[in-house]
Parts: sequence; structure tokens; C-alpha cells
Amino acid sequence: MGYKVAILGATGAVGREILKYLEEVNFPVDDLKLLASEKSAGKYMEFKGEKIKVEKVEEDSFKGIDIALFSAGASRSKKWAPIAVKSGAIVIDNSSAFRMEKDVPLVVPEVNEKDLKWHKGIIANPNCSTIQMVVALKPIYDLSPIRKIVVSTYQAVSGAGLNAIKELVDQTEFIIDIYKAYKDKLEDFKYIPYKNLPYVKEILKPGKIPYQIAFNCVPHIDVFMDENYTKEEWKMVKETKKIMHDDNISVCATCVRVPVFIGHSESIYIETQDPLKLEEIYLALEKAPGVKLYKDPRTYPTPVDVEGENKVLVGRVRRDLDNDRAYTLWVVGDNLRKGAAQNAVQIAESLIKLNLI
Amino acid sequence: MGYKVAILGATGAVGREILKYLEEVNFPVDDLKLLASEKSAGKYMEFKGEKIKVEKVEEDSFKGIDIALFSAGASRSKKWAPIAVKSGAIVIDNSSAFRMEKDVPLVVPEVNEKDLKWHKGIIANPNCSTIQMVVALKPIYDLSPIRKIVVSTYQAVSGAGLNAIKELVDQTEFIIDIYKAYKDKLEDFKYIPYKNLPYVKEILKPGKIPYQIAFNCVPHIDVFMDENYTKEEWKMVKETKKIMHDDNISVCATCVRVPVFIGHSESIYIETQDPLKLEEIYLALEKAPGVKLYKDPRTYPTPVDVEGENKVLVGRVRRDLDNDRAYTLWVVGDNLRKGAAQNAVQIAESLIKLNLI
Repeated sequence: MGYKVAILGATGAVGREILKYLEEVNFPVDDLKLLASEKSAGKYMEFKGEKIKVEKVEEDSFKGIDIALFSAGASRSKKWAPIAVKSGAIVIDNSSAFRMEKDVPLVVPEVNEKDLKWHKGIIANPNCSTIQMVVALKPIYDLSPIRKIVVSTYQAVSGAGLNAIKELVDQTEFIIDIYKAYKDKLEDFKYIPYKNLPYVKEILKPGKIPYQIAFNCVPHIDVFMDENYTKEEWKMVKETKKIMHDDNISVCATCVRVPVFIGHSESIYIETQDPLKLEEIYLALEKAPGVKLYKDPRTYPTPVDVEGENKVLVGRVRRDLDNDRAYTLWVVGDNLRKGAAQNAVQIAESLIKLNLI
Repeated sequence: MGYKVAILGATGAVGREILKYLEEVNFPVDDLKLLASEKSAGKYMEFKGEKIKVEKVEEDSFKGIDIALFSAGASRSKKWAPIAVKSGAIVIDNSSAFRMEKDVPLVVPEVNEKDLKWHKGIIANPNCSTIQMVVALKPIYDLSPIRKIVVSTYQAVSGAGLNAIKELVDQTEFIIDIYKAYKDKLEDFKYIPYKNLPYVKEILKPGKIPYQIAFNCVPHIDVFMDENYTKEEWKMVKETKKIMHDDNISVCATCVRVPVFIGHSESIYIETQDPLKLEEIYLALEKAPGVKLYKDPRTYPTPVDVEGENKVLVGRVRRDLDNDRAYTLWVVGDNLRKGAAQNAVQIAESLIKLNLI
């Protein structure tokens, strides 16, 4: 007794990860349909040893489908989600298309699984940087409401898709070659003209501006919006309030792309309503199902530790030196896994568990 | 009418930069002595077209020296500074050895030049991450006292010395080679076992733990200390208060090493005593001599923009969305230049200007 599952955007970075994760958790799949745009249709992908042909998404693609996992960008979600819902499928959408819609639950199962109960066909998967933050903060919030969050992110390029990984590799090679040519003048390395990168591939382009990401940090993810916060930053502000059901959580976010392949890191400062003991926070994080706490406060996770991890890694939990209601922590999550694919499949698992499908 | 100048640690990353900067600003040097440990003695370095032999530092090395610029680590500073002072030199020390001593001024000329007046032979140069932060914040502080700072850093490997640049290159090459071997399976890149790095060179080792810095972020610079803050973080806490003459500035710092060669970035959140208009802050930053403001709030500096820059670059100045006394900004500085060498030479220039030498 399984489910008929469709994946829209199956060949993308997150789509591939969904496929892997479904297999890994042995999700009850009766039938699997892989959907993509015309460009990727015809490719074959493997699931449980079987080769499945990727089909072009069409009006009747969702007939008979129980669960449709979408990861093909906001505009495709807007187009295909209503069609899938009309066909009788429940859509779990990884894009930003419906996240802030009032009648669409925005769900991280460890935090607000109950919101699934009022879904009307579409359930939204939050943004990767929001997911890992709320998983880490919810156990603390349950001790005392969080009133302020100041977060600075260190986000991997894979958040911009598979091609962004290749772009980072290309840029890196280019710079390393220059480095080698100047190797005898190591002391002058800072003056090597490696700024002149060939911006051939314009993959990593927030607001259409190509930029150097190799050996650089770029405080600009997605387009600029109100108050000169980027869309990525606004997502962290708004999605956090919606998931936590608390409009009084003030969020100040700065989102930065760094030359890392996979794994978002976040330096998070919080203020709670009441003073807490560090020991209470440790205990709460240790018990939290979605968290792996680095108990020794002098150890910590890094992005290379998180690849393939299902849990959100939390380390460097410290108190603020002056405010007895303020704390800081370092949170690392696999942006493709818990930040996207895994959370989507977890939502499907919760739907089954709660008899909502 | 020039000065007899000595550089201790001349062959290091900062020492080389001091040499370049002295030449660049045409500092009035009558005689230049390059000093180093036995290991580097005998090398030749160039200054204004002249080759100068690096000498081993000895008891009588500072005889007749007016200004001794130290950049050879804290233990060597502790040993040689008293000897240099006894010889009649003014020591400008780039290490952490004397920074928190009560009778040693800790100076960033744009911020607290006047503190030079009470020097007793030794003047301390602050830590690189502190320098660029206070240069950016002082103009705002002058509008209204800053009560809270939450800072997360993105620090370049050159802060750990010239060898750390080589280490980053070596690690990067190693990973890129693995990437190429697996190129046909781009989609599986996250499962490539590039975690198994050959930790041959243990350059980047806070607390003696070697680690992967290529394509990674490591929230650990220098050793752990009280409250599980690292020494680097404590420097930002304590040095900021001393330079700004205000013990009521609360600082919460998280210092992170990133795979960048040169240029520290900082995501800074501040709370001021009074509400300010963004326009006032822009105007103050625009006027500040040590700051280059990116006026268009949708542009911003990155580490590759700052190499060789004498100013601290400030962008993305925004208001907090909820607190009318809170702001956030993105600050990038050349850690070897304004963060070290340049600031030390600026101190020497201020001493001359104020007739203190």
C-alpha cells in the first residue's frame, strides 16, 4: 500500500536529492513519475535499481498522483501546482511561490507539523536558510520565546543549483593557475591580477550581476527588495514568523554567499524573553530530534561535516557577555538535504503519519 | 630630517606590507634596519630600489633607532619591546602582547589618535578585525553612542601568515583534482570523499587542530578562552571598549575563517542610544576619512575589492526592521594593510604630526 509520487524538477540539484532521500528512507512509493521541462525530458534516472525516464511535464502529468514534490523554481510552481491539485495530488512545493500565502502551510516537521492539518492541497517547504535556523531555535523558543534574532549566513553555492558548483570549480581553477604562474613571488600574491576573471558563465548572478565567488564572500543572494534587504533575507524574516506562529520575533538577517560547495552555516544571536541557563539550552538542544548538538563547546561543525547529514548541526552555544537573556550559536545544515529535499519528504511522511493523505 | 626605523619580523606577511607601505607614503626614513629571527636573517629585501640585508635581532639591534615597528608575534614582542624602549626607540607593536596594558595606548589614528599623547614607549596596534570595525563604527558612534554590537566575521587566511595562503592553495588543488576525477558524476559531487585531506601542513591550526579551510568555513580563530569565546573574539570585545573609551559598548563576536586569501569581511549589527536617520549615518560615513562608503545601498564591497585599499569599505547600510535604534552594515578591510601594516605606519605618522617623537 504505497503512494503514487511525482517529482517536478527531478534533474535539478534538489530533485536528485529528493530521489536519493526517498530511496534512503524507503518511502512507500508505488509508482514514481519524474517530470522536468522539455530540455531535460528523455534523460534516465535511477531509483531503487530501476531506470526511470524523465517525462516532459504536461497538463495530464498529475493524473492519479497522490504526492507531487515540486522543485523547479517559483514560476513553474505557480503554473503547475493548481493543475496538480486539481488532478487530486497534494503538492509539496520547494519554491517560494506559495510560502507566504495565508491558506498554504509552511512546514518544518520538527517545528510545526500540526500546520499540515489545514492544508488545502499545497504545502510549502521553507527556504533552506530558514529551515536550519528554526530547527535549531525551536527547542530554545520552547524554553522562553525568542524576541530577537540577528543572523549572518555563510551559504554554499549549491543553493544556486548544480551549475553553480561547476562555476565555483571553474573560477577556482582559473585563480589557482594564476597563483602557480606567480608562485615564485608568493609575497606579492595580493597584487596578482586575479580579479580579471572570465565571467563566461553567469550562473551566480543575484540581480543579473555576475560576480567572483571563488576566494571571495558576496553579501547578496537573490534580488534586492524593500529596505534594501535581499529576497533571501526577507525570506528569513517572514518565514520564521510564519513557521513559529509569532509575529513578535524580530529578525535581522544578512545573507552571504561563500565559496563552499554544500552546507550553509549561520552565526545566530538571539534574545529570549526570560533569562535561561546555558545548561537548559544544551539539554533542550540535545533532546531535539532534528538537532545534533556538539556538546563540547570548544568543538563545532563546519560545512564539510554536514554533507549527507539529516540533522542540523549546532555548536559554539555561548551566552552573551552582557545581556543575561542573549545567546549565540553556530548552525550548519545540508542545504540540499534538510534545507530542501529531506524536509519535503519529511512533510510527506508527516502527512501519512497524521492520516492527512 | 628623517627617522631611523627598524622593522622586527620584516620577512613576515605584515612585515613585507609595512615595507611596501613605508615606501608608498614616502615615510621620512633616514635609515632602515630589517630584523628577524635567525631563520630569516641573511635574506635581502628591497626598499626604494635598494637591497637591504635582514639582520638577526640582538640586544644592541635597537641602538639609535627612533621607531621600531614590531610584527613578529606576541612572545617576541614581550622579549624585545622593553629592550628597544630602553635603547630609546618608540615601539609600535602589531602583536597582542601589550594591547590591554593600562599604560599602553591602543590606537587607530582615525578613532583615538589623541591617546598617543600618553604613551610610555610602547604603542599597540589593535587586532585586524577590530581595526576595520572601529573605523567603520566611530562616525556612527559620534552621532549617538553605540550600546550593542553583534558581529560575525569572514576572515581571510592571510591573517594566519604567508604560509596559510600556500596551505589554502594546496588544499584547494587537492580538492579540485578529486572533483575532476569525478567530473562525469557531477550530481554526486556531494558524496565525493574530499574530506580526506592530507593534513600535511598544519598551518591553520587554532588550538593545534589542523583543519580543512578550502571550500569550508571554520568558526575558530586562535585559542578558546573564558566563556568559550576564542581569543580573536575576546580581542574584538576588549579592544573595542579600550579604543572607543567606553566600557558600556557590549560586543558579541563570532570570528570565522573563510577560504579567502586577503580581506576580512564583517557583518555588523549595532544598537545606538538614540534613533538615527539612515541619511545621517550615510552622511557621517561619507565624511569619515578612513571609510569608503558604497553609497548605493544595493552595491557592496567584497574581499577581492579591498586588496591594496587603504580605506575600510562599507556597504549594505540598512536599518533594523523593528528596532528604530538598530542598524546593520557590511564592512571589508585589507587585513594586512589597514588591519596591520598601514595602521602601524599611520601611528608613526601621527606621532610625527603631534610632535611626540
